Parts: sequence; structure tokens; C-alpha cells
Amino acid sequence: MPSEKYVEGMQEMRTHVGDAADQWIKVIHSIYPEFAKVNVEFPFGELYRRNVVDDKTRELCTVAALTVQDFALPELKVHIKGALNTGSSKAEILEIITQMIAYCEFPAATNALLAAKETFNELEE
Amino acid sequence: MPSEKYVEGMQEMRTHVGDAADQWIKVIHSIYPEFAKVNVEFPFGELYRRNVVDDKTRELCTVAALTVQDFALPELKVHIKGALNTGSSKAEILEIITQMIAYCEFPAATNALLAAKETFNELEE
Amino acid sequence: MPSEKYVEGMQEMRTHVGDAADQWIKVIHSIYPEFAKVNVEFPFGELYRRNVVDDKTRELCTVAALTVQDFALPELKVHIKGALNTGSSKAEILEIITQMIAYCEFPAATNALLAAKETFNELEE
Amino acid sequence: MPSEKYVEGMQEMRTHVGDAADQWIKVIHSIYPEFAKVNVEFPFGELYRRNVVDDKTRELCTVAALTVQDFALPELKVHIKGALNTGSSKAEILEIITQMIAYCEFPAATNALLAAKETFNELEE
Amino acid sequence: MPSEKYVEGMQEMRTHVGDAADQWIKVIHSIYPEFAKVNVEFPFGELYRRNVVDDKTRELCTVAALTVQDFALPELKVHIKGALNTGSSKAEILEIITQMIAYCEFPAATNALLAAKETFNELEE
Amino acid sequence: MPSEKYVEGMQEMRTHVGDAADQWIKVIHSIYPEFAKVNVEFPFGELYRRNVVDDKTRELCTVAALTVQDFALPELKVHIKGALNTGSSKAEILEIITQMIAYCEFPAATNALLAAKETFNELEE
Repeated sequence: MPSEKYVEGMQEMRTHVGDAADQWIKVIHSIYPEFAKVNVEFPFGELYRRNVVDDKTRELCTVAALTVQDFALPELKVHIKGALNTGSSKAEILEIITQMIAYCEFPAATNALLAAKETFNELEE
Repeated sequence: MPSEKYVEGMQEMRTHVGDAADQWIKVIHSIYPEFAKVNVEFPFGELYRRNVVDDKTRELCTVAALTVQDFALPELKVHIKGALNTGSSKAEILEIITQMIAYCEFPAATNALLAAKETFNELEE
Repeated sequence: MPSEKYVEGMQEMRTHVGDAADQWIKVIHSIYPEFAKVNVEFPFGELYRRNVVDDKTRELCTVAALTVQDFALPELKVHIKGALNTGSSKAEILEIITQMIAYCEFPAATNALLAAKETFNELEE
Repeated sequence: MPSEKYVEGMQEMRTHVGDAADQWIKVIHSIYPEFAKVNVEFPFGELYRRNVVDDKTRELCTVAALTVQDFALPELKVHIKGALNTGSSKAEILEIITQMIAYCEFPAATNALLAAKETFNELEE
Repeated sequence: MPSEKYVEGMQEMRTHVGDAADQWIKVIHSIYPEFAKVNVEFPFGELYRRNVVDDKTRELCTVAALTVQDFALPELKVHIKGALNTGSSKAEILEIITQMIAYCEFPAATNALLAAKETFNELEE
Repeated sequence: MPSEKYVEGMQEMRTHVGDAADQWIKVIHSIYPEFAKVNVEFPFGELYRRNVVDDKTRELCTVAALTVQDFALPELKVHIKGALNTGSSKAEILEIITQMIAYCEFPAATNALLAAKETFNELEE
């Protein structure tokens, strides 16, 4: 039976990411349940649920962090959706990605920009 | 003679970082003037001056980006000051660093936490 | 209207990358014009236009930098073309990628080697 | 004619990776023979052949290293096969990838988990 | 009051790192209690306590991961002690660091080697 | 007895780095002889000795690679000396570091600039 933290974590994750939360965790769980448990309980059941910073700022910070790390495009797209779901406009997302040019290589910021565009397109379909 | 963008960039940089702006750029300029020019004109004269995202959010995103890249502690401390100067509380800064545990190795987040503490101490002296 | 620096940057970019310059910037511009502006004005309108180091050496250094960062394969391929366009032989490019084995993980250098081969093939078609 | 170290390196590589060793090196050799020479002689003819640590532990350490570096998925899959070939169970591999969550961003560990699943599937076909 | 997972995590951490565990967490806790909570509960109360892989192998994998990430020398030294405490010899630790040359830049492996030497010296004093 | 490749590698290393070569390798050798062997034989006995690219270009490419990886300042300083020893001017070195701003975070390029200045100062003493 899932822990209380797991249940709360799934709820938090759905607030950020919508239906993608359940689909994503289902895949992870089918491969290794311990990984899914940690993935839900730790960032979403713990880190994201504290009220010190609002969700909109949190998601933009995550977009910034994933942009400069330059490779995790599928997860970046998940959090670009998360940024839109927590109140950021498309322009704010593109602007933070552009700001990151100062903190990463141009190729990384470019890849993030292209990922943002793909995400916007997918949501319009 | 400095360009208009350079002058505006220095003003923007002082808003974020205070007196550290002039001290920092003076050092860079004494080593290689082109580097100083680019450093002022590009992030501060260009990226940070657009009104799409507020300065507080921008600085927290920069703190997030420097935390996950895990090595640039002197520059991280500059931007932790920048975050305080643009309206973030100490708790908000510590919370964003803690959130980054999900997006970097524990050692990186730990180093950022220690850098934040050092910065807070320096400002209290 | 584009700035003088933008116009000069586009010319410089075409010298390095050929037709790919206009195609690439057109895509970026359609997503976020500010990003395209910065992308043209800053590295190509500013950094690459100074005469302190010749273009051939500059492009090989960029190939080295993108090789060790290990993920930006599309951009690496653009700069492998840039290296060929500024006077490097295929052997020189492969040799610098091979030298980078000492400064990155084997997988990164291997990916760069495969990207070089793909680029050479595309140019022969 | 290949050096003694090259011949021994190929044998060592086959022990870890099986038939993939010859296929991989053939591709590399066709692009740049010097790279293939270094790739065989150095890690496999030298580093992996010393008896200080057993092959199973070596391969799990390599899986750990490639997981946290988060981008080299094709090479990670090669070494996940290497881990299976040197005596690790699937559970041990998944567990080390899960442990790495503490030493890298969630996206990196997630990508490694998915790569492990793909590798297991390929071997069952 | 600390959770059960926190208490178990502290015990696990002491098994790996000895007295350094309490000293380290005390510092972290004085800066931001939430960070300390997560640091104890998550890797040590959760990831390291599962019996799928033995502690010796786990610590060598962590040494490998911190070596290739090339910057977290204080934390690397903590885990080099952890490797010794869980049954690795000095030679095994140095050998895994040396193996990592194939998966990172020479400078990173060199820094890890120097950190290992410092750790061995500190323990002999 | 050292191999032929080791002897040639030490000679090559001295050409690049001068007396620092013997001092550096002596330290490494005292910690783990296998690491020293690989360090001399592989990059200097093998990669740097091929005549496809001249030593000046090779060293500038290494400076570029170590700049963007942003942490290995002691090794970067060794190769800044190597760049001076193989015919680069101070201005060329500073220019390549400045170019790297486009391929890394500002803090990384800044740290490299400061390391270059320290190296120049040390050589003037």
C-alpha cells in the first residue's frame, strides 16, 4: 500500500504536470517500483509541497536548472508544461530560457528553446 | 568611450549586486577589457533589462542554475546577494537551493547551501 | 530594423557556416526574436569578429569545447562544417576530437567522432 | 599490425561486451583508425585488465559513472550488457541506477533506468 | 521529533561515515533543517538501506560517480572514508579512480587521486 | 623499467609544460604508479605526439576544453603555460577564453580568465 507521502506526492505532481504524472510514474513503476516510490515521495511529496516559495517560481527555477544542464529534453518539456500549469506565460518561459544563455553554452539554451516550441505545439494540437 | 549599452548594463548590474558590480568589473577589465565589455553589455545590458520577468524571479532562477552547475561558488554568492537585493527572503533562497536537490547531486546542493550561509554571514558583519 | 552589429554578425556567421546561418536563425527568430538577436549579435557580431585569433583556430577550439560537453551534437555538426569552411582538413578535425579523449569521457569523444562522420557524409551527398 | 596491447584489449573488451566489441570497433576504425587504437589499447588493454578489482564491480562502477553523466545512453547500454556479462543481476543494475539519484538530477537517473529497460528487452528478443 | 526514517538514516550514515555523519548533519541542520531532513531520510534512510547491493559495492560506485563529476572533493573524501569503512582496500579505491580516466577528463581523475591521498593521510594522523 | 612510450611521453610533456612535467608526475607516481604510467603514456606518449595538428593549436584547444568544463583550474594553469610554451601570445589565450563565453556559463569563463592572470603573474616573478 502506498505511503501517505506517496499519495500526497502524486496529488502534487498532478497539480504541476496534469495527466502526464500518472502516465510517467506508471512507466517508471513497471521497470523498478523503488525508483517510482522515490520519484513521487521525494521531490513531489516533500520538496515541492512546502509553502515557502510559490509553485510558479518553483517551476521557472526548475526550467532554468534543466536548461543549463542541457540534455534532459523530455523532462524539460514536462516542466515547461508544469510552468504553464502553475501560471507562467509562454513569454516568461522563453525569457527565462533566454536569460540562461549567460549560464550555459548557446547550444544548451537553443535546445531548450526548441523544446519549449515543441511543447507549445503539442498543447495546441 | 563606453557604449550606451555598457552604461545601462553597469546600472542594471548595480541594482542587482550593489557595489560589488564596480569592484568585479574593474578586476575583469584590468585583465582583458573585451571580456569586461561583453560581461556588462550582454547579460546586464541586454538579458536582465527586459521587462518580461521581474528581477526577483530572474535572480532566483540564476541561483537555481548556478546551484545545479555546482562549482561557481564565488559567482553564486554574488547572485545570492542579488536575490536578497531584489526582494527574496533568506528562506526563499534556501528553499530554492533545497529544491535543486532533485536536479543535481547532493554535494552540489550542499555546497550551495554552505555558500548561502557564508553570504548571509558576510552581510551581517 | 536590425542593428549594425546584427548585420555584421550575420555576415560573420555566413562565413563560418554558409547557408545554414540564415536557416538556423530564421527558425530561432520564429520562436523568440530576442534569442535570435542575442545569438547573432553576441558570438558572431562580437566574439568571432576580433582579429586576435584566426578563424581556423577559433573553429577548432569550438569543436574541442563542444566535444567535451558531450551532448550538443546538432550544434557540433554546424561547427564541424565551420571548421571545414575556415580551412581545417577532415584529418585535423578528427585529430582534435581524438585529443579530447584526455579531457572527457570516451562516450563523448565517440559521439563527436560519429557526428563528424555524419557531417562529412552529408557534405558529400 | 596490431600491437600486443591491442590484441589483449580486444579480448578483454569481448569478455565484457561480447560480439558488440568487434562491431563497435569496426565502425570507429572505419572513421579514424587512431581513435580505434586508443579505444582498445587504453581502457581495455590497460585499465580493465588489472586484477585489483573484479570485473563485476568495475562494470557497476562504470554504469554509475555513465548514469550521473546523463547523456551517453548508447554507451551506457553497452556497459549495462557488460554488467550482465560479468555477473550482475538486473536488480543490482537497477539498484545502482536508483542509488545514483543522490548523485545526479532525477532526469539523468530516469534516462538510465529507461536505457536499462531497453537493454533488457533487446537481450530477450 | 525526527521520523523513524530519519533515525534509521542517521544509523546507516554512521555505518558508512562514522563520526563525520553527526558533525556534517549538525552543520547542515543549523543552516536549514529541511535540507538536513531530506539529506538523512532520502539517501541514507531510503536508498542505501536496501539489501540488493552490498555496502562495499555501493560506496565504490559512489566514489566512481563523484570522481567523474569532478568538483565535489569534500564529499568525495567523505565517501572515500565510507569505502574504507565498508571493506575496500586503498588499492581498490585508487584503482576505481584510475578506471574513471576513461569516463572523465584527466584533471577530474587527478583531483580525485589527490583527494584519496589526503584522506588516507588524515586517517593515519 | 619505463616503456619506450613512457620515455617519449615524458619528453613530449616537458616540451609542453617544462619542469612542471617531472614535478607533477613525481607526485602522481608517489600516490599510484599505474595512474602516472597512464597519464604519461596515453595523452603525451600517444595523443599529443602525432603530427596532424601543430602543438600551438593543440594547446589552445585544450585551454578551450578546460575552460568550458569550469573546474580544473590547476590543470588549466598548466596548459596555459603549455600554450605560452608552444607559441601562443597572452592575447591569444585571453581571446580563446573570451570566445568560450558562448560555450559555457559566464562564471566558468571568468574563472579561466582569473587563472590566466595568475599564471601570467607567476611566470613574471
